[in-house]
Amino acid sequence: MTASGNETAVPRVIVMHPADNVGVVVPDGGLPAGTSLAPAFAGVTGVTLVEHVPQAHKVALRPIARGEPVRRYDVVIGVAAEDIAAGSWVHEHRMTIPAPRELHDLPMATAPAPLGEPLTGYTFEGYRNPDGSVGTRNVLAISTTVQCVSGIVDHAVRRIRAELLPRYPNVDGVVALEHGYGCGVAIEAAGASIPIRTLRNVSLNPNFGNEVMVVSLGCEKLQPARLLPRGSLPIMHDDAADVVVLQDERHVGFESMIASIMATAERHLIRLDARRRETCPAADLVVGVQCGGSDAFSGITANPALGFAADLLVRAGATVMFSETTEVRDGVAQLTARAGTREVADAIVREMAWYDDYLRAGGVDRSANTTPGNKQGGLSNIVEKAMGSIVKSGTSPIVGVLAPGERLRDRDIPAGLVFAATPASDFICGTLQLAAGMNVHVFTTGRGTPYGLAECPVIKVATRSDLARRWHDLMDVNAGRIADGSADIPSLGRELFHLILDVASGRRTWAERWGLANALALFNPGPVT
Amino acid sequence: MTASGNETAVPRVIVMHPADNVGVVVPDGGLPAGTSLAPAFAGVTGVTLVEHVPQAHKVALRPIARGEPVRRYDVVIGVAAEDIAAGSWVHEHRMTIPAPRELHDLPMATAPAPLGEPLTGYTFEGYRNPDGSVGTRNVLAISTTVQCVSGIVDHAVRRIRAELLPRYPNVDGVVALEHGYGCGVAIEAAGASIPIRTLRNVSLNPNFGNEVMVVSLGCEKLQPARLLPRGSLPIMHDDAADVVVLQDERHVGFESMIASIMATAERHLIRLDARRRETCPAADLVVGVQCGGSDAFSGITANPALGFAADLLVRAGATVMFSETTEVRDGVAQLTARAGTREVADAIVREMAWYDDYLRAGGVDRSANTTPGNKQGGLSNIVEKAMGSIVKSGTSPIVGVLAPGERLRDRDIPAGLVFAATPASDFICGTLQLAAGMNVHVFTTGRGTPYGLAECPVIKVATRSDLARRWHDLMDVNAGRIADGSADIPSLGRELFHLILDVASGRRTWAERWGLANALALFNPGPVT
Repeated sequence: MTASGNETAVPRVIVMHPADNVGVVVPDGGLPAGTSLAPAFAGVTGVTLVEHVPQAHKVALRPIARGEPVRRYDVVIGVAAEDIAAGSWVHEHRMTIPAPRELHDLPMATAPAPLGEPLTGYTFEGYRNPDGSVGTRNVLAISTTVQCVSGIVDHAVRRIRAELLPRYPNVDGVVALEHGYGCGVAIEAAGASIPIRTLRNVSLNPNFGNEVMVVSLGCEKLQPARLLPRGSLPIMHDDAADVVVLQDERHVGFESMIASIMATAERHLIRLDARRRETCPAADLVVGVQCGGSDAFSGITANPALGFAADLLVRAGATVMFSETTEVRDGVAQLTARAGTREVADAIVREMAWYDDYLRAGGVDRSANTTPGNKQGGLSNIVEKAMGSIVKSGTSPIVGVLAPGERLRDRDIPAGLVFAATPASDFICGTLQLAAGMNVHVFTTGRGTPYGLAECPVIKVATRSDLARRWHDLMDVNAGRIADGSADIPSLGRELFHLILDVASGRRTWAERWGLANALALFNPGPVT
Repeated sequence: MTASGNETAVPRVIVMHPADNVGVVVPDGGLPAGTSLAPAFAGVTGVTLVEHVPQAHKVALRPIARGEPVRRYDVVIGVAAEDIAAGSWVHEHRMTIPAPRELHDLPMATAPAPLGEPLTGYTFEGYRNPDGSVGTRNVLAISTTVQCVSGIVDHAVRRIRAELLPRYPNVDGVVALEHGYGCGVAIEAAGASIPIRTLRNVSLNPNFGNEVMVVSLGCEKLQPARLLPRGSLPIMHDDAADVVVLQDERHVGFESMIASIMATAERHLIRLDARRRETCPAADLVVGVQCGGSDAFSGITANPALGFAADLLVRAGATVMFSETTEVRDGVAQLTARAGTREVADAIVREMAWYDDYLRAGGVDRSANTTPGNKQGGLSNIVEKAMGSIVKSGTSPIVGVLAPGERLRDRDIPAGLVFAATPASDFICGTLQLAAGMNVHVFTTGRGTPYGLAECPVIKVATRSDLARRWHDLMDVNAGRIADGSADIPSLGRELFHLILDVASGRRTWAERWGLANALALFNPGPVT
């Protein structure tokens, strides 16, 4: 990465690779026509802007003829749709999107990075669970089989908060795992296993201490025994007592349903309240990384810093999950090359092919991903977005792949960097990472989002200082300092690594302080009925 | 309908039509082997049960040979899969489901019932809106473009309830119209118009007084101008002020976002608080009917009573919507015959064909509808369920058809009985009926559900006295009295008609008294990205 700083310490244009023919404009408000980018940088001798280029958008460093590739990250992010003069704004209408990489003849496990030097001695204070997992929070989760019960469950949760939680001060909170699945869906359709295992595995998230309780209506398609088959969950203390069925004949009237839920909840609260944090190795972390509301700075500041932190985490023995299939699809060759084994590379291809088919069946392709905000933020298309998205996975070899809704502990995957295949929707991705077993979430954003989860702490990283300043009490880290020149990727990556350990130990994020939490969102590729 | 009562006033078996070869067992706990159903009824001379038959399940009134049709409602609900002796339990494993009716060669508008004698003079006390619609409640709705904002909006709603609502005592409540759409979805996919128009039209539900306000993140795919195109909504007072964009530069910090939402909300609360109920003709009612958690009594008690009430409503000039495409698909020939015009019949076929294709693309068919609870409740398959479902529409001619998410007022449909095509999922159906303009909801249930909506009152009708007794403070009406012999369909239908007028005028339902409300659920036939 080369920065053109001229007189001031703040670079005005950032170029990711010497072979690139575009750079990204840094200053708030962009750069006006006539701005001279001199002296030479990145092998370019003097460029003068021929028009205003907005912040985070691309400027041509050399003339690019119609039909020539537009390169950023040393990757072809598009093909010039017209002749583009040096100093011009290179926006989405001036280039066409390249065809997606076919899923054959890929480099399979050809270039996994050598494992970095192990980092030893890093620990956090976590809650060790009966199943061996470690929680970073101490939360009572109430699983539900179907949306029908949510009115009753919401009422019960308000009562639990008001009447029970004050008596169990070591418990951080109570959350109802509500969702739109469970009935009115084609539960035998191909793909129905995805939402069902997602709900099952979210119930087993380490932050819930293996204290599973379920509220069921009774007549729904997703019966409790299908959600949590007997024997699959050794941690349910008493199957009958841990499942409250509203249609059960013992329930006479509204208050009896509330009383059943509260009595069941209290048995779990007693055990949760007895949990104590203990010193755990960083290897017990399962960090889910995600980006949302991305802009062209995502791939320059926040995501490379998060990638640096991801490498540190992997070297410390932790597991890091990256996801968002449509946002990495255009980098599939990088991912298969980085796979630790041929088997892992095959699994990456399998998940990409599944998603290609899923989108094709719906009559769209991966270009449906980018948003108006992405484009306003300078990301011309999904190829450019993908390159910026992948860098948050760092450089470690990929040691495993999870299909949507699968749980790490159910699979024979070693610690390290894992591709958890999910849609890119922030909420669906977060829900699937919770199902996989995530205990800390790191979320980067350029445009800004108040995203949060009640189930797991979410560390929010701003890509730009302007956002970090305005959203000073919503963003936990300002990675815009990298563009400003006041930090670099390694220093910010290390800061993030330490913050992850602190948050895992109980330090509250901004989203937690305000109680900002989004609902779960299930990935159901099947039809509703 | 013929009842076999024997010594007591309570019938023990109900037969829907003289041509039927099965009857439905009435008593709690079913009827034991050896029970003699004598003397003759429904043309049958004496039947002795050869095995226990559970409540709401079917008993063979005559021997039914393998391959012979099983008839209920004078409709073939299945074909005997084995020889069935008289007095046997006719359950789902003893019959096969008939092939679905093809969508050609249907009777098109051949048998619309003559319009009933107009009922005049029926009124309710409602809130007349600027667009001419009439609300039955006075609620501030906060529309959202995307799930990202919901943490902030939830916080703002809590503050509005605590700090603002006490100053506006004529306002019944505040509801955030939250959903999982808006971003991370293929917004250009075929079918994306369904969730988008649903959100737009729910915002215009008559209970919200045409006071539309929107909270947007800023970078989402579903931009405010796409949700509510300028000019499409004459009732927005000030476009700029009525849309709060969290990413807007004027927002510095969390509290400034909350303050913007509250200030916008207060402007609308002032106007809502000035609303007063006035006497409106029953013609201003838009009643959505639905059933969920159905059993074999649904088609004997609650649904026929609701159908009777629907006929009274139509005669009084009101609009009644029935829905749940997969639950009426097997009665398509009844519906097309009942269409008021050929055009309406064509529209029914169009919607059924669309749904057939949608299910086929997902690899399933209409048999994916029935639930374990339906089957436990005696409904062997979707054909039997459909016959019981359709009766709640009454007997009026069908005067119009709405595609999912469409709004009645946008279409040139006269008052009367309307088929609003929706999935059968309770929540998706309810959401789409809200979008259509429903101002009273009637929901029948046999198994029991605490279903409720924050946007519209929901009258809940139990099909069985046992459920009504146990759920005494959740069910508003006990239609089980029809099976008990203490009421009949016309008397219960008239009672329901008057209750609908009362609830429209402000009488609170049980769900409202407990504050039971389910989240909106959008129908998005397109893929997520």
